Formats: sequence, structure tokens, C-alpha cells
Amino acid sequence: MYRVASIGGDGIGPEILVEGKKVLDAAGEKYGFDIEWTDYPIGADRYLETGTLVTEDELKELSAYRAIYFGSIGDDRVRPGVLEKGILLALRFYFDQYVNLRPIKLLHGVSTPLAGKGPEDIDFVVVRENTEDFYVGIGGRFKGRHHADLQVVRDLYSVKFGLDAESDAEEIAYQIGVLSREGSRRVMEYAFDLAERRERRVTSVDKANVLSDVYGLWREVFTGVAAAHPDVSTEFNFVDAVTMWFVKNPEWFDVVVTPNMFGDIITDLGAMIQGGLGLAPGGNINPKGTSMFEPIHGSAPKYKGLGVANPIATIWAGSLLLDHLGEHEAAEAVVRAIEGTIRDGVVTKDLGGTARTSDVGGHVAALIGF
Amino acid sequence: MYRVASIGGDGIGPEILVEGKKVLDAAGEKYGFDIEWTDYPIGADRYLETGTLVTEDELKELSAYRAIYFGSIGDDRVRPGVLEKGILLALRFYFDQYVNLRPIKLLHGVSTPLAGKGPEDIDFVVVRENTEDFYVGIGGRFKGRHHADLQVVRDLYSVKFGLDAESDAEEIAYQIGVLSREGSRRVMEYAFDLAERRERRVTSVDKANVLSDVYGLWREVFTGVAAAHPDVSTEFNFVDAVTMWFVKNPEWFDVVVTPNMFGDIITDLGAMIQGGLGLAPGGNINPKGTSMFEPIHGSAPKYKGLGVANPIATIWAGSLLLDHLGEHEAAEAVVRAIEGTIRDGVVTKDLGGTARTSDVGGHVAALIGF
Ligand SMILES: CC(C)[C@H](C(=O)O)[C@@H](O)C(=O)O
Ligand SMILES: CC(C)[C@H](C(=O)O)[C@@H](O)C(=O)O
Repeated sequence: MYRVASIGGDGIGPEILVEGKKVLDAAGEKYGFDIEWTDYPIGADRYLETGTLVTEDELKELSAYRAIYFGSIGDDRVRPGVLEKGILLALRFYFDQYVNLRPIKLLHGVSTPLAGKGPEDIDFVVVRENTEDFYVGIGGRFKGRHHADLQVVRDLYSVKFGLDAESDAEEIAYQIGVLSREGSRRVMEYAFDLAERRERRVTSVDKANVLSDVYGLWREVFTGVAAAHPDVSTEFNFVDAVTMWFVKNPEWFDVVVTPNMFGDIITDLGAMIQGGLGLAPGGNINPKGTSMFEPIHGSAPKYKGLGVANPIATIWAGSLLLDHLGEHEAAEAVVRAIEGTIRDGVVTKDLGGTARTSDVGGHVAALIGF
Repeated sequence: MYRVASIGGDGIGPEILVEGKKVLDAAGEKYGFDIEWTDYPIGADRYLETGTLVTEDELKELSAYRAIYFGSIGDDRVRPGVLEKGILLALRFYFDQYVNLRPIKLLHGVSTPLAGKGPEDIDFVVVRENTEDFYVGIGGRFKGRHHADLQVVRDLYSVKFGLDAESDAEEIAYQIGVLSREGSRRVMEYAFDLAERRERRVTSVDKANVLSDVYGLWREVFTGVAAAHPDVSTEFNFVDAVTMWFVKNPEWFDVVVTPNMFGDIITDLGAMIQGGLGLAPGGNINPKGTSMFEPIHGSAPKYKGLGVANPIATIWAGSLLLDHLGEHEAAEAVVRAIEGTIRDGVVTKDLGGTARTSDVGGHVAALIGF
């Protein structure tokens, strides 16, 4: 028996998560385990009613779980960033989920926007660092009239340099990214371990030629970790170039390890080459703590409640969750059942079909068989 | 008569620039102007011999030109970043070339890696801010043994917190990005002016939901500039999502305006969808100062001197240069001649042909006719 927490979240989140649970329950029946689900009402609705994002009690309770199954967050009524930072990133950081695992795999029967590429070409994994870099949320503004806390400084400035204290013309903003040696090392170790179970190739992605301070450290650590894994072949690649090779030669890649922000960017690109956001799962992993599994797409508020959202990314994230719990056979069965469902044409509109969200979930669950 | 400075640089830079000059000279003969070229020996060779990147005298001389024609820099004998920052970025920043203009246009006869897309789908312009953001080069490290300047601090730390002063385990690096209101405004104004001469659509690219300090300011400024251009329709897009839409729906875009680092990333992706780096030109523009035109690819050291490099990106950058000087007719003639050369199959290996670098340049020049 496993206890798993679930957070439906906003928009289409709750309805796709229902399908994910349906499939995981079916897998449990077939492979001999039970999941006890506990749902947490975290999301925009509660935030708008009460101002609460995540409570300390919730964090304490959630830390008793090895896995959280997460739908999606984001709501048009809330300013961009509030829910993302206050819920999604808060959980990633609080539980120190330092690995963001994103398989980029074109399933059989899915079409990619890339000409002449098939499932044999698109099959790699991005290991994105998930707790550092420009996601630390440190920054501020200076010399702008809207920032009353700087009034004193600004007054001094305007006296000293003759600036107009009532004008924003001189305003600047800054943002700080932080990388630690240990934070880089541990995610790279994860990537190399993974590569050793795959094709033994790791690509490091950075921009050390320009952001030399953070990514100079990243390269130094990578060189050390690579030396400790002589059986794995490695290369450095700049982030700008990587976006080209994802499109031109996705078959080159096996495991890609990347700092947080570049990981965010290249995994969305990866999602598109594997057929779109409806098919892209992610795992936020702390190997010794509470991990969290989610579709990488957002909450698509305008489709909420219509029953048309594609639940495959969420179901696939459920497969990653089972794998994380050690249910490898069941995890593989879920992916096979997803492929079978696509083969059977039971797909939503984004994949060219007419099936409803619950048809897809039901079909995957049925294919797992019981 | 125009005076233009030229910097061949490293690797294939000098040989592709020769072809660019050949074509611009031909355009001059046809359209009635002369270009007087002055070459500057800036690049890896001189750096390795003398330690000099760019001299103050050179900067002074170069500021007398309205345009610099630039090949490429980068050399395997030099640590990543030294030449990029010491030459390319130094010139961009010194001359305050705040617009990095990158047309993403699939020419007739070129194949794109995107299935089912043609020249009518891929035709937009990225306006990349070019002097701020994470390119300002501010950052550092802390608590590492290699940083002797921190010896005192580290000693204090190890006493206070019991850290091992001989260990790097606690080391962190940080990097600071800076955006100014005025720096954002001016590049956006450029983008809106451009859109008014195109399809009147501007997409702003940021990551304001996470890097809220810098890109919060960016959005604020964008909202203001957009309000002053009610004839232009606008949208915000997150950088991760934009990489998807470039691949899935490039036809959506008209003018894209973006901070420096995201611009670096998405324009490489753009280069690939327009057929590859061999076909991607860029202009670094200061409308009232010295501008600089270059292919966006690197110096490809392993092809140096072989005469096989594709000069089209450089020739196209030459067209941007002519346009900047006000020679609009000649600029258009150069692009038409590039298309004619591709149609005639006189292309290098990267485009599936067998032509040599000089064949391509010669053919483009001949097609301009005289
Ligand atoms: C919603 C957002 C904060 C998040 C991120 O930037 O990490 C998302 O884009 C993702 O990739 O999971
Ligand atoms: C060479 C490098 C410094 C440069 C950049 O990052 O701007 C290049 O990638 C570009 O896009 O022109």
C-alpha cells in the first residue's frame, strides 16, 4: 500500500488528475498494490478566497509522503508569478526536489513537427536542476518612483546627481542567479547514474562564454563529475546551440543535464518535438524525500470543465511516479497502455481525435487490463 | 562613397567576409556607390601573439564609421568567453548597439527542418536587446579555495561556522542581470517602429512569472510603449512557450522583442528553422552611432582555410548593412541574388551542394549584374 498526496490545482488540473488516478489505480489492481490518495485543496480558488497559498501544516503533512501527484496551477484572475512561485516553485524548493526529470520521447503513433524524424530519433532525457540558478527569486529595483522603500536613497541621489525624484526614467531592475558547487554536483551525479543505465552519453548545457561566473562553476563541477565516470562520454554545449540541435539532430542526445532556467526553456522545446505539451510529463525528484510528478503544461483555464483536455501528460507523469515508488513493471505498463490508446485513435483534439478526457483515461486504464 | 570598417576575425571569418565584400562591391557598381574598406586585425591570432583584444585607439577610430562588417570570432586555443566577451560583446557594448536585429526568413529553395512549413510561414524579425540583462558580466564566487581574494573572509567563515577552509564544498557562484527602464524602452520603440512597417504585431518574450524583478520591469515598460502604439497588436509570451511556437506555428510571428539572453537562445532556434546557421544574418544597431553586421554563426575553426564555408549569412548581413546605410534598393538586390544563387544550386555542402565559398560569393555578385 502506498500513500500518495494529490493536488489537482487550477483550470484543467483536477479533471486530468482524475484520469491519472484512474490509471494508477488500474495499474495497482493489476500489479498488486493499492494507492491511498489524499487530496489537498491547494490552488487559485482557495488563494482568491482566503489569501492562502500553502500552509505550514500542509508542508509538514506533505513531507510524510514519498510522492505528490500534481495537476497544474495558474489562473487568469491572479497576476503571473504569484501561484507559480507561491505554490509550484515553493513545493519544489521546500522539498528540495533538486532533479527535474523530463523524458523527451516521441511515442509511436504521435506526429512530431520535425520533418523526417520518428520515434527512433527522439528519445532522450533532460535532467534539469530544480532548486538554484535564476529561480532563487532574488532581485529588486532601484531609482524608481514606485518603490517607496528607496525613497531616502532616491532623495539622496536626486540631490547628488540632479535626478528627478518624481521620474522613473533612471529606474533599473536586477536579478541574481546563484549556483552552488554541491547543488550542481548532486544533479550531475543523478544524470550520470541515469546515463549509465542508458546509452552512456551526457550533454551539459550552459552559457559559460557569457554568464561565466555561474556557468564557469557549473563547467568546473561537470568536469570533475565526468572524470569520476570514465565510462560515460560527455560534451559541453551552449544553450543557444542546443535549441538548434534539438530540432536538427535530436538523435544525438541521450542524457542532457542543465541549470534550472535553461532547463525550463529547452524542455518546452523538447515537449513540442515529442508531439506537444499534451504529451510531456515531468518529475520533481528528491531521491531521499518528497517527490512530485506533474504534466509540464499549464492549467489552460479556458478549457476548464469542458472535458476536452488531453490527460496523457498527467498519466505519463503517473508512470514516472510509479517508477519512483519502485513499481517498474507497472510504470512500463502505463506507458505501453498510453501507446496502445494512441494506436487505437482514442485521442483528444490536440492529437487530431475526438475523444473526451475521460475516454482517454478510461481507455488507458482498460488497456492495462485486469 | 561609404567608408566601412571590416573585421575578419577568426576561423572561417576572413574567407566569408571576402565574399561579402565582393558582393557589396558589385552592388555598389550596379547602384552607383563606392565602399572604401579598412580592415582591422582584431582576433585570436593577435590576442595570442600580443595579449591585445581591442585597443583604445581602435575603438576611437571605429567610432568614426557608421558600419562595421564583421566575420566571426572564436578559437580553440583560447578559453571560452575571452574572445566573445573581449571582442564581440566589447564592441556591442562600447558602441551601445542596443538593437540586435535578426530576420528569421526562410528563403525560397531552402529546406527547413519543420514539416509542412514553407517560405510563406517563416518570415518574422527578432529584435533582441543587446546591451543589458545577463550580458552585463557582473558576478563572482564565494567560499571556494581558488579565490585568494576571499582568503580572509573564508578564514573568518571557517572559524565561525566550522567550515573546512581547504575545501570547495561550500562554494557558490552568483551572476547578476540588470535591465533599465530606458534600455528596455528604446529597443521596444525600435521594435514597434519596425512592426509599423510590417504586419503591426509585436510579441514580447520574457519569464516574468519567475524572474519577476527584471522582467516585471520589462513588462511594465512594454505595456507603456504598446499604449503609445495603438495601431500595433501585442502579446506577452514566456520564453519557454515561445520555443514551442517557433517550431509549431512560426507563421504567428511578425516582430518579436526580447531581452538579451532569451534573444540569444531563440534566434539560434530561429536560425535553424530558416535553414541553419549558414543562412542567418544579424545586425547590431545603434541608430545614431556605429553599427555592426555579422553572420550569427561562429568561426568554425575546423573549416578554416578549406574554402567550404557557406558565405550566405555574411552576404545577407551585408544586405542589412546596405539597408542601414540607406541603400535600400541595393540591399534588396543582394537578397534577391542570394535567392537566385540558391535556385541555381550554387550552394555549399551544408545546403546539399558542392560549391566552394568563393563560387557562392562569385555567383551572388554576378547575379546582381552590372
Ligand atoms: C510555471 C513555471 C513556474 C514553471 C517553471 O518555469 O519551472 C513551468 O514553466 C515548468 O517548466 O514547470
Ligand atoms: C558568441 C556569443 C557571445 C554571442 C552571444 O551570446 O550573443 C552569439 O551567440 C550571438 O548570438 O551573437
